[in-house]
Amino acid sequence: MSFSEALAVKRDGGRLRGDQIEAFVDGATRGTLSAEQLAAMLMAICCRGMDDEEMHLLTDSMRRSGEQWQLADDRPDVVDKHSTGGVGDTVSLVFAPLLAAVGVPVAMMAGRGLAHSQGTIDKLEAYPGVDLDRDRRETVALLDACGVAIVAQTDDIAPADRTLYALRDVTATVPSLPLIVSSIMSKKLALGAATLVLDVKWGRGAFRKTLGEAVELARALRAVATAADVACEALVTDMNEPLGPALGTACEVRAALEVLEGAGDARLRRVSVALGIEALALRGWNRDDARRQLDGALDDGRARATWDRVVAAHGGDPDPSGLARPSRAVEVRSGPGGRVVGIDGEALGWVAVDLGAGRRRLQDDVDHAAGVEVHVRTGDRVGRDQPLATLYVGDRDVDVETLAARTRTAFEIGDGEAEDRPLVVGTVDDLGD
Amino acid sequence: MSFSEALAVKRDGGRLRGDQIEAFVDGATRGTLSAEQLAAMLMAICCRGMDDEEMHLLTDSMRRSGEQWQLADDRPDVVDKHSTGGVGDTVSLVFAPLLAAVGVPVAMMAGRGLAHSQGTIDKLEAYPGVDLDRDRRETVALLDACGVAIVAQTDDIAPADRTLYALRDVTATVPSLPLIVSSIMSKKLALGAATLVLDVKWGRGAFRKTLGEAVELARALRAVATAADVACEALVTDMNEPLGPALGTACEVRAALEVLEGAGDARLRRVSVALGIEALALRGWNRDDARRQLDGALDDGRARATWDRVVAAHGGDPDPSGLARPSRAVEVRSGPGGRVVGIDGEALGWVAVDLGAGRRRLQDDVDHAAGVEVHVRTGDRVGRDQPLATLYVGDRDVDVETLAARTRTAFEIGDGEAEDRPLVVGTVDDLGD
Repeated sequence: MSFSEALAVKRDGGRLRGDQIEAFVDGATRGTLSAEQLAAMLMAICCRGMDDEEMHLLTDSMRRSGEQWQLADDRPDVVDKHSTGGVGDTVSLVFAPLLAAVGVPVAMMAGRGLAHSQGTIDKLEAYPGVDLDRDRRETVALLDACGVAIVAQTDDIAPADRTLYALRDVTATVPSLPLIVSSIMSKKLALGAATLVLDVKWGRGAFRKTLGEAVELARALRAVATAADVACEALVTDMNEPLGPALGTACEVRAALEVLEGAGDARLRRVSVALGIEALALRGWNRDDARRQLDGALDDGRARATWDRVVAAHGGDPDPSGLARPSRAVEVRSGPGGRVVGIDGEALGWVAVDLGAGRRRLQDDVDHAAGVEVHVRTGDRVGRDQPLATLYVGDRDVDVETLAARTRTAFEIGDGEAEDRPLVVGTVDDLGD
Repeated sequence: MSFSEALAVKRDGGRLRGDQIEAFVDGATRGTLSAEQLAAMLMAICCRGMDDEEMHLLTDSMRRSGEQWQLADDRPDVVDKHSTGGVGDTVSLVFAPLLAAVGVPVAMMAGRGLAHSQGTIDKLEAYPGVDLDRDRRETVALLDACGVAIVAQTDDIAPADRTLYALRDVTATVPSLPLIVSSIMSKKLALGAATLVLDVKWGRGAFRKTLGEAVELARALRAVATAADVACEALVTDMNEPLGPALGTACEVRAALEVLEGAGDARLRRVSVALGIEALALRGWNRDDARRQLDGALDDGRARATWDRVVAAHGGDPDPSGLARPSRAVEVRSGPGGRVVGIDGEALGWVAVDLGAGRRRLQDDVDHAAGVEVHVRTGDRVGRDQPLATLYVGDRDVDVETLAARTRTAFEIGDGEAEDRPLVVGTVDDLGD
């Protein structure tokens, strides 16, 4: 079969056959197709789209391009959780020990963070000694030891995605639904948990800017998971302002610890519990029981205790006093005051990156002491010179005045009313067609 | 400006700005964009199209990517003629001396032939001694010497097209209207005649298979020429069967000589004269005068005499007895007989290629003795075992039985009526919207 035929089919808006999709993925994995042929197919997919069946076949081919761990074969009760990414999204650090605390094991494989949102791997590495480069055997051992395995993505999982993602990055083909879906799901399916909950973000701090786009993505992700026999639910949640109060690795760990202690940020707790309920419902739990159990585990210290065991099992010292401390804290204040009508999470995310808490390039190091703490929420009234945020400076030589000014402009303060948006919008089914 | 922005604009169906088109062409010419970025843009253009203004800007950028001869600056009365290509299309060999015979100089720059249709350059090279690798100064000298300059395309004319065409070939982006138009017209505009007539073919032997596609192409080509201040007319003509009676280089020269002598194939004469009339009308002639003059020049020997001067000026010996002669002629006969309801020109073109008359790959040599002569036309009644075609074998060791069988099946002979199609369909304006 000539690959030109497949290119012509997609160019003209047709459906690709399974063998054509296989040739595309195989060409990316083994280098048998040229970069220009792969790029042309990526752009054709971007312009013409794919139906659910094509997305399923593409995802499946990409999954099979490398190692398949299929954790469900040995540990059928394991739950995986994925977020499409956002600012102050500390949910994984709460979700994992919370579910483990009620007896449901959680496995997550993640890449390191890039750009304005930080990665779960980086956050856990804020604990000195933590080692997340684990193979399948070690991952199963972690699950057995503490009920949680959080591991860094290896080069052997879905290698086709790495090649295709690098090409998408330079050919303006990143924002294509089938390409996003297959990139995310090929890695989830290669890890192979039997149950998956998805947190699909919408809003100015997310990569899906409208609610409709987020629902479309949630629906497509769930359809591909379901076609692969994974029990899957997707919640659409708000990312028009930072989710939790903290941006940065040690910062976010501290915010998670507060929630795990039954206190802390209400929004972070709310989304973590909502996703937990969906996961338990997929495992056959009654939703009311699930909520009661999860709230109980947060309020009675079980979740918090589980977390310390998780950190220790992953090689870290769970004593929070070992987390990096900033060398300096700078408060950013409100000026004349008024109503907080908007908070630009993406802008704050970049401030955090420039403080050293994240990466502009993959080879950058993360400064675990650096971060941003947000003190107000959209809809809050603030008086004159009230603290809006605190910048934490680590060991980098940063221009803190400029960063403070950028932070100040991320808060839109005015006379009007703030838009009242639900934090947890609903599941794909709740949201109808 | 980041090229990703331009890719995103076209990906989403928007209009490219002039500087974005310039960056694309410049990236192709100077290698500053990667092959994958160029391929992604080609596919986006293929999927989303371009409006007339974008096509004009793309063509103009590609023209400016290399040398610009601008023949009109020195020889404002020169006419250029281009065909979109077909089988048995010997028109250029008639058109050029015919117009020169009535006092209008003709300049044509062409590539060497590839695939099932042969190139004008190859045909003229059937004359021993002919040298068509000429620079601008020599081209002007040829025009002054004999009223005709037929020269081979140089690497310095529209080099962006060479890079982009090679990429289009492997990325299934050849059949895109704006890419076809800019590829053709960038080279025409770089030659820079003030007057241009286009022969846009439609049908099974052409690359535009429907009349509607051919009209669309003719309209777009003329729009781009007009935007570049070139006086241009486009005729749409039939290519559902071979145009002239001969396929192959020396074969086609002989067919042209017969027409230039006032005899020969009526269809070849008809299209040549029709294009000549359009060219002269663009130069301000009255159409009736033009027809009379052109018919006269064919019938009174002036066109024929001009041709010999053209061959001599291009370095060749005009004596037709010097043209290569086949080593063997094989007749292909009709079998039971009936009505010729269709002739597959493309199939015959490939037979000619496999006899040695054309190229499958650019590095192949052409056997000037090889070719196919067609003895019947669509609509003809043929009796039992009547000759349909003759295969001319040159110096190659070919499987002539297989080629004869392939030739036989190219003629569809049945009981029905043949479709009555006009040979010269009309100009863009005749064909309305």
